[in-house]
Formats: sequence, structure tokens, C-alpha cells
Amino acid sequence: MTLHSSVYSSSDLLPALDGDLKTLNFLQEVVDILLAYIVESFDRSTKVIDFHYPNELLQRNNWELSDEPETLDDILISCRATLKYAIKTAHPRYFNQLSTGLDMVGLAADWLTSTANTNMFTYEVAPVFVLLEYVTLKKMREIIGWENGRGDGIFSPGGAISNMYAMLLARYKMFPEVKEKGMSSVPKLVAFTSEHSHFSIKKGAAALGIGTESVICIKADERGKMIPSDLERRIVEAKQKGYVPFFVSATAGTTVYGAFDPLIAISDICKKYGIWMHVDGAWGGSLLMSRKHRWKLNGVERANSMTWNPHKMMAVPLQCSALLVREEVSGLMQSCNQMHACYLFQQDKHYDLSYDTGDKALQCGRHVDIFKLWLMWRAKGTIGFEAQIDKCLELSEYLYNKIKDREGYEMVAPTIKARMMEYGTTMVSYQPQGDKVNFFRMVISNPAATFEDIDFLIEEIERLGQDL
Amino acid sequence: MTLHSSVYSSSDLLPALDGDLKTLNFLQEVVDILLAYIVESFDRSTKVIDFHYPNELLQRNNWELSDEPETLDDILISCRATLKYAIKTAHPRYFNQLSTGLDMVGLAADWLTSTANTNMFTYEVAPVFVLLEYVTLKKMREIIGWENGRGDGIFSPGGAISNMYAMLLARYKMFPEVKEKGMSSVPKLVAFTSEHSHFSIKKGAAALGIGTESVICIKADERGKMIPSDLERRIVEAKQKGYVPFFVSATAGTTVYGAFDPLIAISDICKKYGIWMHVDGAWGGSLLMSRKHRWKLNGVERANSMTWNPHKMMAVPLQCSALLVREEVSGLMQSCNQMHACYLFQQDKHYDLSYDTGDKALQCGRHVDIFKLWLMWRAKGTIGFEAQIDKCLELSEYLYNKIKDREGYEMVAPTIKARMMEYGTTMVSYQPQGDKVNFFRMVISNPAATFEDIDFLIEEIERLGQDL
Repeated sequence: MTLHSSVYSSSDLLPALDGDLKTLNFLQEVVDILLAYIVESFDRSTKVIDFHYPNELLQRNNWELSDEPETLDDILISCRATLKYAIKTAHPRYFNQLSTGLDMVGLAADWLTSTANTNMFTYEVAPVFVLLEYVTLKKMREIIGWENGRGDGIFSPGGAISNMYAMLLARYKMFPEVKEKGMSSVPKLVAFTSEHSHFSIKKGAAALGIGTESVICIKADERGKMIPSDLERRIVEAKQKGYVPFFVSATAGTTVYGAFDPLIAISDICKKYGIWMHVDGAWGGSLLMSRKHRWKLNGVERANSMTWNPHKMMAVPLQCSALLVREEVSGLMQSCNQMHACYLFQQDKHYDLSYDTGDKALQCGRHVDIFKLWLMWRAKGTIGFEAQIDKCLELSEYLYNKIKDREGYEMVAPTIKARMMEYGTTMVSYQPQGDKVNFFRMVISNPAATFEDIDFLIEEIERLGQDL
Repeated sequence: MTLHSSVYSSSDLLPALDGDLKTLNFLQEVVDILLAYIVESFDRSTKVIDFHYPNELLQRNNWELSDEPETLDDILISCRATLKYAIKTAHPRYFNQLSTGLDMVGLAADWLTSTANTNMFTYEVAPVFVLLEYVTLKKMREIIGWENGRGDGIFSPGGAISNMYAMLLARYKMFPEVKEKGMSSVPKLVAFTSEHSHFSIKKGAAALGIGTESVICIKADERGKMIPSDLERRIVEAKQKGYVPFFVSATAGTTVYGAFDPLIAISDICKKYGIWMHVDGAWGGSLLMSRKHRWKLNGVERANSMTWNPHKMMAVPLQCSALLVREEVSGLMQSCNQMHACYLFQQDKHYDLSYDTGDKALQCGRHVDIFKLWLMWRAKGTIGFEAQIDKCLELSEYLYNKIKDREGYEMVAPTIKARMMEYGTTMVSYQPQGDKVNFFRMVISNPAATFEDIDFLIEEIERLGQDL
């Protein structure tokens, strides 16, 4: 091993940064770089991306880690280089992913979170953040329509983990012995979700020892919505085979079509057969904030659990995903996941232990994801989030109307996409779905986008595709 | 539902913050608040915590979410209130948790990460960060001692998830059919770990459908180290019962005693019985950076996987945890976790797809955790991390020598702890272990702590306990 090439002699070599003037100057210099980047990101005349292929990017800068320290000036140079080659996800013409845009209050809140640098597992080490999570989860449950906001929940590192929590809870509620004895102690479980659902449902089933073959994919109609009669048919069929249906995941806002499964019909079926109903609203859950659009989730209040990612359509900085549980059995999450780690969750503490959330989590340490959502909510109010979401849907309708009669949209998506990234003018993703070939998947969740940006995108796709 | 009490009339009500002067002024004001907080945090004359009981804290401020927006001035007030009641985890006298301290370069890097606001799933949306993860994981594998840094790995949301990844991989490698067919298709699996190991091993087994009863706890000696002969005895016993041992998790740095399991002896046993050897070095893995102390992990290079959390002893801001895999079967992580989501991981992209890491993750979206570690490494060099770790161990030895002959340390930890928090002068955790009653668990990972702070802590514990 050639780890260390030199001998370390004195602690003076380390930057002694601990709140002194040098520290403050350094941090302010970084902030100046960030503020300039922000101004640039919102400027439509700049590129969304300065694209380079991986091998090329590796060579354009020295990214290596070495034994010797660098100066703070070198560190500032690294910061600038990193931003130069980053994607400007805040750019008004970045439509590539479900998470786009950069909210200034959310950003400020994330800076504060980093500065507070603590951990969500106990009230003791994160008193304010634990309370804000409590307040916000309750508010979200009220908006879902659960009486007095009762129930449970947690912020997790993303929608896939939130969905996994739901599956864990459903299994535990039906067969609590699975926690100690594992899957060999229970009958063959099966879960149901639409063929357009997110891959995290299968990923969760694989991880949880249920197996992907036990996730039965229900047919979707031509608009991408789960067909309830097919769900019931497959449940009956599974029961006839001796399997135990334990989990239905309906999707509110599918990944590709943005379709909403019919929740009322699905909940009737779940109730009839005694199956846990989960709503994966990672993408579409935010429509609950809009009086105009929340009807698309009618019936969500009948679900047992819901995934809702404020880091998507509400444009909260990454990561911010909530799992919400309409809990009838008190303390289900706690009993499902707790392991009684006595070095962390002492029972003889001097404050109300119900605020120590760590033992209901799958994680031990847990990042503070709540503050940016909470602070943005304070800044916008519920009506501000509503306006933001209504605007995204208005832009999306505008785009639909504009291209529906337009000719020339053919199967050349990947090539146009490659050009788009090389030119760096805008960014949108593409994919196939079922028997459809590659098509552009336009995602509008960027609060900075306007009607003109949509016009620009259409023109740009046509321009880049012109001589193909 | 009484969600909306007023009608929203104009988008002018929303703060129009998108890189304009108002934005920059607002962000600068937040930064000024944060800089003042940093100066205060490092000042030994300030309190570590302004402690209030949950109900009291709920009432000391308006934390509620409402329909109407607040002004930016109100938002600044909320930021100040949040910091007022936060724990100063950067305070040189905060010894409460495995994650303590606040590194200024790490903080700057986290601010940049928030500003770049992107997602690790593809090279397309996070080119620089994906490359930096690649470079850093390779470096960490080299330091472990795997030839040419070969292998695989990923940054996950914490040590518990990293340990869960390891268990998933071990199971999949032995029985790849488990992914599709679930646990009912495989024999009864058993895992082994020391009785002093972290609770996430059992938590993982519960989630993965293995069951906590299938985690066999191996005896530890009086220093907290796993006893290899007991491990072998239990493996043989399990095999005689027809169970299949698939996973041994050795601990490098136990949570309470900080003990290091004997890795060489354990690896011999794992090799003999064909069992995946994992090293949970969430806490102690960082000793690999120290030439003086890395012998405690001798044998780690024989492990199949290792958890190593730079957010603990290396003082990288939360969250930063790596799972590292010595992969002999090429692409094990990828084949274990991939679900071929064609809308994200298109196979006809125009760049080298091996950089799209998303499909080997349990998560879909994944927060950028790499930049703060990478930038700190550049700033300190490997020798800087080494010096930081050596200093923590030196302080710890100093503390041990100072109290070993001192009288008066009795079973009054919880009461002294309560007073400590109310006074706010310092913070340290306590817990029982096995047949030991409550004792203080002193964690030294705060780079700002000095010999004088250790002296202060001892005096303070005695002062607060004096009239009990």
C-alpha cells in the first residue's frame, strides 16, 4: 500500500478553521461563487449543461485525491470547476427529471440544515427539527383527509424507501411474526400494482424477500390508469392458488404518463379482500395542495399509507420524501421497526420519549430533510404551493395543445437528445413504454418555466431534428 | 376539509426569487445569520444547548404551517429561532454522538451540493458528482487494501442502509433466485454478529424477511470483541440444524465500547465455511486512514464488503456513508438490485452507461453525499484526515488515563445527564450494556475538542453530580 508518501509533522498544516476570521472569509468566498452560479442558472441565455463524455470530463480537471492538503485557494478552484460541469437543474429550460428548479427559500433552509449538522434520531440532538417533522407530517395527513391529521409517518431518503416502508408495514400488520421468524413463517404473499407503476415496488419486493414474481402487474388502460376489474380478477386468482394478497400499491401520477389510478374503486376492492392499500404519490401526491386538481386523488383518504415526495412537484430541494400512515393500530411503525437500542433510546430520559423517532425508522442516523419543506411552506403558504402546482399543470396543458396537431414527431428521440445535451440549450428525457417506441417524456415541475420556455423547447426539438 | 381559507388571486403574492437582486440579498442575509451561528458554536463560553422540554418548545414559538405566505423578514426570524433552539453540534464540548463537529470545508461543500440540487442516479444529471463518487470509492477500496482498488460500492443514506446492502448482496450471491422467488425459495438462512454489534444488523434481517431470530449473536470478550471460537461453534451448530449460514458481520468499532472484532480469525472461519464476511466499520472504519491505528482492522482486506461512514470519525457533515464491495463476481450489485427502469436507464444513450449508477441502488433518486467528503479530502489530504483521527484517539487515551483512578463515578448518569442538558454546558450520552448499569459513553470525534475540553467535561460531571 502506498497510502502515505510523506510524513506528517505538525497540526499547523491543517487549515485551522473554526469560526475565526479566515473561516468566515473562506465561507463568504464560496457563497459568492454560489450566488454567481445562481444568477447564471436562471439566465436563459446560458447553457443548461456544458456536456462532456465521462472520459473527457475525467481528463479536463484533476479530480484525484492525494496525501497532501491543498490550499483554500485550490479548494475554491475545485468548487468553480465542479459548478462549471454541473447540470443547471434550476435553469428554466431544464425539463429532464421529476425534480427540477431551485427554490431560494428551500436553498437557504438547506444551507441552514447543513450548518446545524445534526441527526433526526432523537429529540435530544434535534429538538426543533423533530418538532417541525411532527408539525409537518400532521399537516400533510390533514390534507390527505385523515381525521384530525391522526396517524404516523416519517421522512425517508426517497420515494423508493418510502414505498418499501409501506410494504414492510403491510406485511407486519398481517403477520407480525415475520419480524422475528422471517418469510419462512408466513404463507406466500403477493402484492399488486399497475404495469405502469414505479420500479421501486418490485425493488422493494426483491429486498424484502418477497420476490419480484410475487408482484402481480395489473393492466392499465390506454391513459395509463390501473383497471380495477383486472385487479379484482388477479386477486381472486391469487387466492385460488392459495397465495395471500397483502398489498396493493396504486399510483397517483405514474412516472411516464403521469396517470392517476382510480383510488375509490381500488379502495373498495382492498376493503373487500382485507388488503393494505398504499398510494404511491411520490410524483402526483402534491396535487393534494391544489383545490383545482386534487380530485385526481379522490379516495386517497381511504388508503392505509401514502408516499408523497415534496422534492418533486413542490420543488423542495433533494431529498425530501414522506411516508404517511393512516394508522389504526397504534404504534405500528414503532413496533414494526424497533430494535430497542438502549444506547440511543434510553427509557429513563428526562423528556417525553414519543419524540424520539429513531426506533421507528429503518435507518439509525437520519438526515434532516424537514427544514427546507417547512421553511418553504412558511414562505409560500399553502396557497403558494397551490399556485405553483396549478401553473405547472397549466404549462403542461399548453404544451399538449400546442403539439397535438403538429406533425413531425417521430422515432428519433435518442439522437435529438444527444444533440440537445451537446448543444446544452435545454434538456428533456425520453423512453419507451410498453409497445410505444422511444418518445420524449416532458416533465414540468420547474417553477421557473414559462409559456415561452415551452415554446422554445418545441422549436428546439424541431431545430435539432431538422437535418436527421 | 378546511385547507384553504382564502382565495389566491395573483402570482405576485409569491416571492419572485430567481436570481434577482432581492434573491441575492435574502440569501446573503441568511448566510450572515449562519456565519454568526458558526462563530458562536465554536465559542466555549456559549451553551451547547438552550434546552426546553418538547411541550415548552412547541409553545415558545409559532411553528405552525398556514395558508398564507409569510414575508422574507418573517422567514429570517424563523431561521434565527430554529438556530436558537438547535444543539450546537460543532461546539468543542459536544461529545454526545458519533457525529460531532463541523468542518468548514465540508460545510462549504454541502452548501454547494444544495445549490447544484441534483440526483445521483445517472451521469446525465450529475456528471461531476458521479465521477467524484467513482474516484472516491476507488480510493477507499485501495485504502482497504483491495488490489488496484477493484470492486464496487455506493454511498447510501447511512450505516444501517449500508449494512442492509451487504446482507442483500450476500444473500443474492448465494441464492440469486431469491430476487424473483423470494425467501420461500431458499433454505433457512442464518447470519452471525457479535452481541455488541449495531442493531441495524437485526433491523436489516427483519426487513429482508430473514427474521431477527436468524441473527445469531456471538459472545464478546470482556473488551467487547467477538470470540471467534464461539462464532465457529454457532456456525457448526446451525449447519447441524440444517440452516444455511450466509453472512457474518464483524464490527470494527462497536457502538458502545468502540471494540474491534478480530478480523483475521473471523475471515479464516468465513473462508472455511464459505460465508460472506462483512465488516461494519461505520464507526471504526476511519482508522484505516491512520498509519498508527489501522492495525486494529488487520484482515479487513479479506472481507467481502465493508461499511465505512465518513460522517462519523472523519467528521464529514451528515449524511455520508459508504458500502464497499470486494467483488469477485463482476456486477453483483447491479444484478442484485437492477429492475431495468427504461425511462431512466435507457440502453441507447450516447455515453458510457457504466456511469449510470442508479440501477444498482436500492433507492431511485439518491442525494449527492459525495462532494463534501471529496472536497474535505482535497483540503486535508490523506495526512490531514490521519492527523485528525490520531488526535481523537489521543484525547480518548488522555480521558481514560485521567479517570481510571478517579473515584466517585457511580450509577447516577441519567440524573447528571438531565442537569447537563438543562445547564447546557456540555453534552455526553449514557447507556447500559449487558450487565453493566447506566454509564457515560464518551465519544470523541469532534475535531474542535482539546485536552482542556476533556478536563472541563470531567470537572463538569463531578460538579453536576456533587449534591445528588
